[in-house]
Amino acid sequence: MSTSGARVAALDIGATKLAAGLVDRDGAVTRFTVRPTPAGEGVDAAAVRDAVVALLDEVVGGGDEDVVAVACAGPVDAATGTVSPVNIPAWRDFPLVRALERWRPTARVVLHNDVLPLAVAEHRLGAGRGAQALLGLVISTGIGGGLVLAGEPVPGPTGNAGHIGHVPVELDGPRCQCGGRGCVETYASGPSMLAHARQQGWRGADVPELMAAARAGEPVAVATIERAADALAAGILAAAVLCDLDRVVVGGGVAQAGDVVLAPLRRAYHRRAGLEFARRLEIVPAALGPHAGVIGAAALAR
Amino acid sequence: MSTSGARVAALDIGATKLAAGLVDRDGAVTRFTVRPTPAGEGVDAAAVRDAVVALLDEVVGGGDEDVVAVACAGPVDAATGTVSPVNIPAWRDFPLVRALERWRPTARVVLHNDVLPLAVAEHRLGAGRGAQALLGLVISTGIGGGLVLAGEPVPGPTGNAGHIGHVPVELDGPRCQCGGRGCVETYASGPSMLAHARQQGWRGADVPELMAAARAGEPVAVATIERAADALAAGILAAAVLCDLDRVVVGGGVAQAGDVVLAPLRRAYHRRAGLEFARRLEIVPAALGPHAGVIGAAALAR
Repeated sequence: MSTSGARVAALDIGATKLAAGLVDRDGAVTRFTVRPTPAGEGVDAAAVRDAVVALLDEVVGGGDEDVVAVACAGPVDAATGTVSPVNIPAWRDFPLVRALERWRPTARVVLHNDVLPLAVAEHRLGAGRGAQALLGLVISTGIGGGLVLAGEPVPGPTGNAGHIGHVPVELDGPRCQCGGRGCVETYASGPSMLAHARQQGWRGADVPELMAAARAGEPVAVATIERAADALAAGILAAAVLCDLDRVVVGGGVAQAGDVVLAPLRRAYHRRAGLEFARRLEIVPAALGPHAGVIGAAALAR
Repeated sequence: MSTSGARVAALDIGATKLAAGLVDRDGAVTRFTVRPTPAGEGVDAAAVRDAVVALLDEVVGGGDEDVVAVACAGPVDAATGTVSPVNIPAWRDFPLVRALERWRPTARVVLHNDVLPLAVAEHRLGAGRGAQALLGLVISTGIGGGLVLAGEPVPGPTGNAGHIGHVPVELDGPRCQCGGRGCVETYASGPSMLAHARQQGWRGADVPELMAAARAGEPVAVATIERAADALAAGILAAAVLCDLDRVVVGGGVAQAGDVVLAPLRRAYHRRAGLEFARRLEIVPAALGPHAGVIGAAALAR
């Protein structure tokens, strides 16, 4: 088993889904599994940890990986190895790295925010190829981001760079779970879109249904997505002028919804962006599919 | 003259002031002059260029610098060597690099946004020492910024990274000269503060007088600065969550005003920032004084 030491167990922890994969030396994903993140009443820190460990056991079995690469919904603290994901309330200052070191005592555990790996993977192999300054963006239960500038991943000192969901876009906007006000996430996350549509009388069940309704031209659904797209466009513009971005790659469930979200997002962005250097930005859907997170996490860990 | 090749003529072009300096091999500023930027009716592109060249002639005389390092109010286009500063309307796609190559045909001309040099200088020698992720910020006629991340200057592909003045903080905010809406600059630049105070009935002459009035507790002046500080705090928070900042160094005329601006800015920031990693940010005044721009421009050019 001379190559076994090069195996990476990669883990992608979001508020909605947990994904784990085994990535070989060439970056190929040889095993991959997804399951829902435990949530709701009675789910405590140990329950989420147990689900993560069970998933890892299932995917990598009794392997001898020397690296466990973790992408986790933010905020994270790369220095202490703890995580406090806004949308996984059971975990506050949860010692994720220590939990994974217990699971695989011989392995090196590497922690990043949840979207940096996607950004890295898309930059190397996907829709971000050739970009000089890239933001990867995932719209799901929360909204996360990751930066690749001048070809290099930018984790930031605490591992939280790219956190676009908590960029404020409205001075007196809605209170956010993060403690701030008017964050992009209060307009454009899946739950925020659902809540807004329901306030306007929409009666559907979930985000995919909301997307379908918008695609069918249902006015409340269309207006809800326009509102979300406008706030997200303002957040992207903030990132564009601060980081001189030339590309945004949008992943997550919403990217699968395609142009029903991306078209209003592009329109809102070009309505807002005045400066020429900001207007060159392209907003494109992710290309690598659900494996991007584990591919990127493994690439970052090497 | 064996060291003459190491001399850098450094130029700092803002909407209010032009500064030029001669920087020796050790980074010491051996000559330095400031004069007002030509502005107003009848000032065309050539008039601003002539003022710049006259200033350079005055400062460096008949020297034989091999580098001309330029920090210019943004946006700039580092690739084409042109500049279109929002607050210097006479220059639109102005070929600044070509103009300086004509002035000193043997020199290499290096162009950056106006605040990156300050950020670099403060990071190496001033109030930014030890910061892992730094935003340099200047509040003047416009509001500019520059990023130093993981110890390295981040100019961005077009030289415009750090452009915090055009971060949108209010979805339906005031129209900005950049073509956008609700930009930080529409609340917190010197002219925006003056315009707002006057709308509220204040009768003073200029920004230093407004600062003095706020220091004396005059309610309109205090409220104007609170409003500006709040919008700027939202912009800083955007930068903090996107770039995982641990420090902001504030320079320019307003930094000289000191705590009358910095205290409300810090309060507003800490009222807005919820996430722990964002709350660690420190907001400090620049330490190097008016030479920072030319010191940093020379450092960047080497």
